[in-house]
Amino acid sequence: MNRQIGKGSLLFSEAPLIIGSASVVGTKEGEGPLAQEFDCIGDDDKFGQDNWEAAESSLQKEALTLAIGKSGKDPKDVRYLFAGDLLGQLIASSFGLKTFEIPLFGLFGACSTCGEALALSAMTVAAGYADYVAAVTSSHFASAEKQFRFPLEYANQRPVSATWTVTGAGAFVLAGKERNGGKRPLAKITGITTGKIVDYGFKDSMNMGAAMAPAACQLIAQNLEDFGRKPSDYDRIITGDLGAVGQKILFDLLSEKGYDISSVHEDCGMLIYDRETQGVGSGGSGCGCAATTLSAHFLPMLANGELKRILFVPTGALLSTVSFNEGETIPAIAHGVVLEACL
Amino acid sequence: MNRQIGKGSLLFSEAPLIIGSASVVGTKEGEGPLAQEFDCIGDDDKFGQDNWEAAESSLQKEALTLAIGKSGKDPKDVRYLFAGDLLGQLIASSFGLKTFEIPLFGLFGACSTCGEALALSAMTVAAGYADYVAAVTSSHFASAEKQFRFPLEYANQRPVSATWTVTGAGAFVLAGKERNGGKRPLAKITGITTGKIVDYGFKDSMNMGAAMAPAACQLIAQNLEDFGRKPSDYDRIITGDLGAVGQKILFDLLSEKGYDISSVHEDCGMLIYDRETQGVGSGGSGCGCAATTLSAHFLPMLANGELKRILFVPTGALLSTVSFNEGETIPAIAHGVVLEACL
Repeated sequence: MNRQIGKGSLLFSEAPLIIGSASVVGTKEGEGPLAQEFDCIGDDDKFGQDNWEAAESSLQKEALTLAIGKSGKDPKDVRYLFAGDLLGQLIASSFGLKTFEIPLFGLFGACSTCGEALALSAMTVAAGYADYVAAVTSSHFASAEKQFRFPLEYANQRPVSATWTVTGAGAFVLAGKERNGGKRPLAKITGITTGKIVDYGFKDSMNMGAAMAPAACQLIAQNLEDFGRKPSDYDRIITGDLGAVGQKILFDLLSEKGYDISSVHEDCGMLIYDRETQGVGSGGSGCGCAATTLSAHFLPMLANGELKRILFVPTGALLSTVSFNEGETIPAIAHGVVLEACL
Repeated sequence: MNRQIGKGSLLFSEAPLIIGSASVVGTKEGEGPLAQEFDCIGDDDKFGQDNWEAAESSLQKEALTLAIGKSGKDPKDVRYLFAGDLLGQLIASSFGLKTFEIPLFGLFGACSTCGEALALSAMTVAAGYADYVAAVTSSHFASAEKQFRFPLEYANQRPVSATWTVTGAGAFVLAGKERNGGKRPLAKITGITTGKIVDYGFKDSMNMGAAMAPAACQLIAQNLEDFGRKPSDYDRIITGDLGAVGQKILFDLLSEKGYDISSVHEDCGMLIYDRETQGVGSGGSGCGCAATTLSAHFLPMLANGELKRILFVPTGALLSTVSFNEGETIPAIAHGVVLEACL
């Protein structure tokens, strides 16, 4: 039986399998440290489209097509899509996924959406509501700058605490335990921890890592408490896009709760770019950051057994330009997914 | 066992119960035909806040507080929230719900979000993932006009095909079958049908009913096919906010598929305002329209047995000002929830 664990977690007795996944990224990500690991790197960040939003839609479409193809399935086998992006009213997802004609649950958790989508996908498969589902999330540097900050043509300056929105989409196909026909899956999702909104009163939208670190702290502590684990029970605890500034704050906040995760922590935003040479400030960010890094970098390490168990914790900053301009704080949320090797 | 039915539906063997619900609306809704049925009508559409977005957050907070109170439960009993609104990055939900400190799944399906939230809530409870969950959605006329059209101060003119965004929030508390301690629930959710994105190429954002009618048609036809039912198997088939213009198109589209739902169809957008006297064009719209009308008008009719079984189908138009300004079409989606009396 799947079980409620503690105050915010679920443990899946028949853990849903990730049977296919894909990452599609832009040019800057294709020049970074993970370049060799992505499935597809665009030649041009417009991906053949007329505008940035359509380019981001194109990223989602390609990532999902690739992930389904790699899973050996057909789009018609996929019963539900769980998808989202950073843009107002999720237009990257709506326009990117409409041609698939698959029943859709649109999600928004800012940069935590990849975790939210994987969590709901796992819940759906583990309950027997679907044989196959897919989770898709994306971000695009240029559409995000236009949405949240300034049009690129303004060439605004950025403080070093700012992060750089990843141009990329990640897609994951999940299946029930008995549905993979003997083929070894990439990993299984054995549990989830669902985050609550955490707001420490931060207001600096050029320092998202600081705004999101308290949500990551809440989620990680809740996960460890609910599952009765210590940090070393995970080979890695992986945040989505805290960046170097957020990481430091996360360590400080967790140490106040008696946890030291420094030996197992990695942050997708710190892995995807070379901060010394790529001018990205504190690191990468965006729904696409965690999604593409999980797909390209961590899932293969679970598939080959190099990692046995990880806690994947994308975090999201729940602001909009409207709330920012009204002087509001930046609430944040995190979604946790426990992934284990299938060996 | 809960079962997958057809291509897009689920049938719950142990149907989740709606054990509490509440509606909070603004002044215009409080002058309409359903005035006597709402739980709370604001004296002022700012609900004591400084801006429209904060007012909408306040609506969500009040609706959820009332719904939990009416269910006889405590906020700490509620394991998950499923919530959303129309604003970019869901700021009405994030700021409205943060003080509850309940794990949250943020959702976006435009005006269909109430159906999406009820569907995921029902799936979660029926799978045993939670004893109690809540679904909350809202819209606010002024925050929506600012988000999608013009600031109110412009006093722009509107064609008669336009709809009027409802100022209101609806909240629903769901529980597993055995969790209501003998008290009779308001209704049970026996099944859901999840919509796909439907895009007929419509581009007129002042005629949302026309843009969304094809999605309602797809959903209703899929539901009838999946469950092997005819329209008369439902006492009502209730769309969220097609308005008078969208209703006519829906009837035409369904008649092409061989279905006549005219004798059982009602539209929340046509019920919530008096179109003769309230100057609302084609009718009401917004996440809050379907949510408050279901809570205030239809749930009591299920609770007293006047209605036995209804199909609730909120529809959403998946546009943003960015996609509209880029000349894109208006894709739409619908989410269907089958509600039955518990007698």
